[in-house]
Amino acid sequence: MMTQTEQDLYPSRQRAEPEWLERRDPVVHGQAGQEPPVDRALIEQFVRDGFIVLEDVFSPEEVKDLVREADALRERGGLIPESRITERGMEGAEAVRSVFAPHRQSEVFERLASDERLSGLARFILGDEVYIHQSRINYKPAFRGKDFYWHSDFETWHTEDGMPRMRAISMSVMLTDNHPQSGPTMFMPGSHMNYVTCVGETPDDHYRASLKKQEYGVPDGESLTKLAKEGGIVGPAPKAGSVVIFDCNTMHGSNSNITPYERINAFFVFNSWANRLVDPFGETRPRPEFVAHRQVKEPIRPLKAPQSRTTGGQ
Amino acid sequence: MMTQTEQDLYPSRQRAEPEWLERRDPVVHGQAGQEPPVDRALIEQFVRDGFIVLEDVFSPEEVKDLVREADALRERGGLIPESRITERGMEGAEAVRSVFAPHRQSEVFERLASDERLSGLARFILGDEVYIHQSRINYKPAFRGKDFYWHSDFETWHTEDGMPRMRAISMSVMLTDNHPQSGPTMFMPGSHMNYVTCVGETPDDHYRASLKKQEYGVPDGESLTKLAKEGGIVGPAPKAGSVVIFDCNTMHGSNSNITPYERINAFFVFNSWANRLVDPFGETRPRPEFVAHRQVKEPIRPLKAPQSRTTGGQ
Repeated sequence: MMTQTEQDLYPSRQRAEPEWLERRDPVVHGQAGQEPPVDRALIEQFVRDGFIVLEDVFSPEEVKDLVREADALRERGGLIPESRITERGMEGAEAVRSVFAPHRQSEVFERLASDERLSGLARFILGDEVYIHQSRINYKPAFRGKDFYWHSDFETWHTEDGMPRMRAISMSVMLTDNHPQSGPTMFMPGSHMNYVTCVGETPDDHYRASLKKQEYGVPDGESLTKLAKEGGIVGPAPKAGSVVIFDCNTMHGSNSNITPYERINAFFVFNSWANRLVDPFGETRPRPEFVAHRQVKEPIRPLKAPQSRTTGGQ
Repeated sequence: MMTQTEQDLYPSRQRAEPEWLERRDPVVHGQAGQEPPVDRALIEQFVRDGFIVLEDVFSPEEVKDLVREADALRERGGLIPESRITERGMEGAEAVRSVFAPHRQSEVFERLASDERLSGLARFILGDEVYIHQSRINYKPAFRGKDFYWHSDFETWHTEDGMPRMRAISMSVMLTDNHPQSGPTMFMPGSHMNYVTCVGETPDDHYRASLKKQEYGVPDGESLTKLAKEGGIVGPAPKAGSVVIFDCNTMHGSNSNITPYERINAFFVFNSWANRLVDPFGETRPRPEFVAHRQVKEPIRPLKAPQSRTTGGQ
């Protein structure tokens, strides 16, 4: 299905046995001598672990406005078809689990994606102008929040979306306080340095099911055991207003949530402008525009934070 | 269905709305002046929180023997029919999730139930001779361990088994290291002081499904939210050889486990000899003997620990 001439440095879902391939891209592309917009120690931590937590990035007032908008999006009419993902909730009723592409459907989240506290740091880490490859609001319900199995986002974005290189990062803005036991996102520190290929082929229209539950592109148990042995597993539980940043190839997942604590976050994937999508490297047709953006005219112009807030540290 | 004259102090599943009833029994029955077999501070903590963790109770060698026997029980022929509970595991194969009544099916676990480090402490807390009301080995698999919803054990034991009073405790011996993110049992501290009744009625033979997943006898979301607000939620992750002890009415549950860490524990419910079962207080017929023991001839005679080990503290 490839039409452009682009070498596949990270082949996956092509063989019967999983492989560990070498990472061919730097984790931080920022140019030498350039000062990072956060403590350099955090950047070093990001290079080593593949993720960092920035606390107190957004004020309680900002969070309040974001929560109000996130709540409104659950119900709002006229959204992009299919961009609101639901699942059967506690009393059998359908509950909203995600709204995709909020930065294209809400001025509040469009502004958030451009906020320099996010986009400025993304530009530094990726060493390039940036754009949003995917975004969503995730609502993990109290009492019946489902688990989400281990995966490298890049494995999917490369294979199903045609993202050529590991030059993208995710930023998750916490809109509610997390709790160590409310099923927070868990990371395997250091896992971003290895590319674990998955076995098998991907069926067409796999994205419909995979947005709820990963079934293809699933790493094997032996590799996960080895990664956990090497780097452990951590599940940070940051407060509302914090931002969790992780590399596109960091292995992550989450357990279920039976606690009474709902979790909401606003999730943005920043991709390097030089790393825009080509045809998928796998055998499937490209996923729809609301899941993987191709119609992007120009990079993000970072906007100054409304107050003179600066990005905090861990 | 009640034939014995026994007042129902803790009616549940009888009304359309949940209620909070007062606890009518002490948490620790030990007689005044009697020295506890563990630090008094731990006993006070148990009274306040409804659970405690004792670390380093069993030596690594003892744990190794117990794990060997627990592993053997997954496969052993000739077990009590239905006492081995399986569920569909990772590759579609049936995996053993629990073996009930191990102390009746294995000399190793019969000995463990009588070990004074468990039974001696149980006698102190319950202020009486004790026997095993229920026991099981729990195997929570890696990668695909399921969650288990919030519940008070006593609510079930009273309604479905006919346990008259809150005079029973659970002791869970950790046979593997727990991890904060491997779906450990979570507790709501202080919840043991309130009896939250459940709504609705229980169908006959409910026990078959309920051993895997709780559907009836489920507390309402509002009550759980209130209990969590009052006392919080903690998920201790003790090492192998530790013992977690909790009151029969402490609200507890666990999230799923997608980590590569399997969790195995040996679980014993000690009931006061004076608190032996009568007919169920609910409308259902009694659950089978392997789930709720009625054929008990005499109380446990505590056995000294093999080495001169004493019970540790937290």
